Formats: sequence, C-alpha cells, structure tokens
Amino acid sequence: MKLRIVKRLLEANERIAEENRRLLRENGVFTINLMSAPGAGKTSLLVRTIEALMDKVSIGVIEGDITGTDDAERIDALGVPVVQLNTEGACHLDAGMIREALEDIPLGGIELLFIENVGNLVCPAEFNVGEDVKAMVLSVTEGDDKPLKYPLMFKESGVLVINKTDLLPHTDVDMDKIRRSALSINPGLRIFEVSCRTGTGLTEWTDYLGALSVGTGMY
Amino acid sequence: MKLRIVKRLLEANERIAEENRRLLRENGVFTINLMSAPGAGKTSLLVRTIEALMDKVSIGVIEGDITGTDDAERIDALGVPVVQLNTEGACHLDAGMIREALEDIPLGGIELLFIENVGNLVCPAEFNVGEDVKAMVLSVTEGDDKPLKYPLMFKESGVLVINKTDLLPHTDVDMDKIRRSALSINPGLRIFEVSCRTGTGLTEWTDYLGALSVGTGMY
Repeated sequence: MKLRIVKRLLEANERIAEENRRLLRENGVFTINLMSAPGAGKTSLLVRTIEALMDKVSIGVIEGDITGTDDAERIDALGVPVVQLNTEGACHLDAGMIREALEDIPLGGIELLFIENVGNLVCPAEFNVGEDVKAMVLSVTEGDDKPLKYPLMFKESGVLVINKTDLLPHTDVDMDKIRRSALSINPGLRIFEVSCRTGTGLTEWTDYLGALSVGTGMY
Repeated sequence: MKLRIVKRLLEANERIAEENRRLLRENGVFTINLMSAPGAGKTSLLVRTIEALMDKVSIGVIEGDITGTDDAERIDALGVPVVQLNTEGACHLDAGMIREALEDIPLGGIELLFIENVGNLVCPAEFNVGEDVKAMVLSVTEGDDKPLKYPLMFKESGVLVINKTDLLPHTDVDMDKIRRSALSINPGLRIFEVSCRTGTGLTEWTDYLGALSVGTGMY
C-alpha cells in the first residue's frame, strides 16, 4: 500500500517534470539541477559560476531551501534573476514546486537556469524536476566512502563536482578512491575537481558548461 | 490527502517508538539516536567514543545505512555488538526498523546503545525511534549557516557535537555563529566541540555521556 502511494506520487511528479522540460526547451533554456549534501558548497559554486559566465550567458536561478532566503540573497547580489522556494520541511524539490517557480522567472530572457536543490544526498535524486542534466557537488571533507554509501545520486547525475580540494592536505581523504567508486557506479560521470574558495579548477567547469550548451546557442 | 497519509505514518511510527522505548528502559539500556549530514563524522565519533568508554560501559550499536556494511565493520572491529540496517533507499530510520534490529541485539548485556541514523540533515529528525536523546553531529566544513537552514534537527536534538574543529583554521567558518544560531533555535542544546581526527574535546563528550547515564547505573 505504502509502495503504491509512493509510486503514484513519483508518476505524477514525472508528468509535471515532462511539462516543465517542454516549457523550458521551448524557451531555449538549458537547465541544471544542482544537488549535494548540506554544506558541500552548491551556493558557493553557483556564485563562482555566475561571476565567470554572466557576461557571456543570461543566467537564472531557483533556490530551494527548507526555510530562509540567505542563498537567494547571495545570488540576488550578483544581479541575476532568482526565485527562492521554501519547502517548509520537505527534504527535496519536486516538479510541482518548480512549475510554480517558473511562473516567476522571465524564461524568454534566460539561457541557463540553475535549480539549487535542498541539501540532501538521498531524496532529491528520486525526483526529476524537468532538468536537462543533474549535477552533484561532493566536498572532499565528506569522506571518500560517500559514492558507495549514497549510490543513487551518483548514478542519476551526469556531472560530479568535487569541491573544497584546498582542504585535501588537511584530511585523510583519498581522491582516487572517490573517483574510482563514483565511476564504478556511473561510468559516464563527468568529474571536476574544484575549490570554490581558491578558484582552482573552476575554469574547466565553466568551459564545460559552455560546451554543454553550445546546442542552445549559448556561446 | 497527502498530508493525512503522512500524519498516519508518523502516528504509527510514534506508537512503535514508544514500544521500543519501553523495551529498552525495561532492560536498563540508555539509547542515543545519532544524526548528521553525510560525512559529518558520526561513525568516527562512535569509534572514538567506544574506545574511550568500552572498559567502563557495555555498548551496543545499530548502524543505519542506505546500503553497504562499511560502518558496521568499523564497529565490529572493536568487539562491540553491532547490527547493520540497510534501508534500501529510504532516507531515514524509523521505529519499525529499530524494532526489528533490537531482536538481534543482546539487550540484557547492554547499558548504552547508539543508533547511527542515515546521513541526512532533514528527514531523520521527524522520526522518533525510541531513543532517550537525539544527538547530532555537524562538521565545521559544512558552514556556519546550517542551524538556520535546517532548524528542525537542531530543535529536536538535545546535544550538538561540532566535529572537525582541526580544519577550522583552513576555513572561513565562524564557530560563534554556529553556536549562537543553534542556541537561538534550541536554547537548551548542549554543545561540544571536538576533532575526531586529533582527539581534541572528546573527553568532555565522553564525560557527559557518563554523567547523562548515571541514573542507569552505568558508572
């Protein structure tokens, strides 16, 4: 019974996600669903990415948080259109929430849309929201055992951004183990190693975003 | 409708949690539900705690993970009774899972039981499992904005262990801000600052566990 309910919810979500995807593509918007555990650095990565790309690409952001507007304020300070979604307790974004947020985003003027999910390494991976690609952020300080412990998110994501590499020398974390185990779950995963604090590795990531969206006429 | 279903699930969970609590207390077991985001260091804290207390107190552990047995193996290596629960995708432990795990734990011989929840800063806080106290771990590398962004867990927990303090000098994190915002949500929160890597601060934590369970005849 419980399983049937969950299945019905996921099917309803998938229908709305498909509608979102159609709307976004009609408007020429390339959409990235950004996911991670709490504190891996999604918002910092977004700020860095927007700073690097905003002269070349028109960017919009949907910020998902359980409560509060801190993240949206950080994005708003960059002068980029941003909508803050508060889930009021819910542990992930779903397609219905994104459908509502899209009403407040000027889609015609946006080429690249980032959806920052709630910080959670489990539930967000189960809900498509209409994105073109799921990108996840893992900070090195979370440890090198995370891919095998939270496999679904690594499997669903097309891109893995490993953040906080500046802290590597101060930890016992084995970067090769992260890469190996992530690729054992998802051999097609594209991996970037960055430090949002120092800026290391960010050019490869922003170049990739450019190449990824060539088809949309972004560059 | 959806809300009604969730409410019914939570009520059913609460009933089973109450049964677990009765069973544990009848056996003189003091139970700690250990929660955190992925990679905050719950298992490392458990290993350090067991090493410090195992000569004085008989300890048991229930390890909750989505998949895998890595954490249980780390505990098993210390010679402590441990049960690994795999949730197969579910993002939190519930009281029913703990009821089943308790059948495999020799309750009569245990004074202190740790239940390590799935790494998730959101959902585990909603489900009582029959514990005496909820203790949460936050690593400094997750950032000083976490209490206000994930308030429920800080509100539900009696204890906050701030881990990885050895990394503080390499971050921009404001420890006072963590303490202030956590206490603004939960003024009764007992806070410890530790580094499981270097051992700093762990004595205060293990002394506290001793004092906390004096009533159970632990010490």
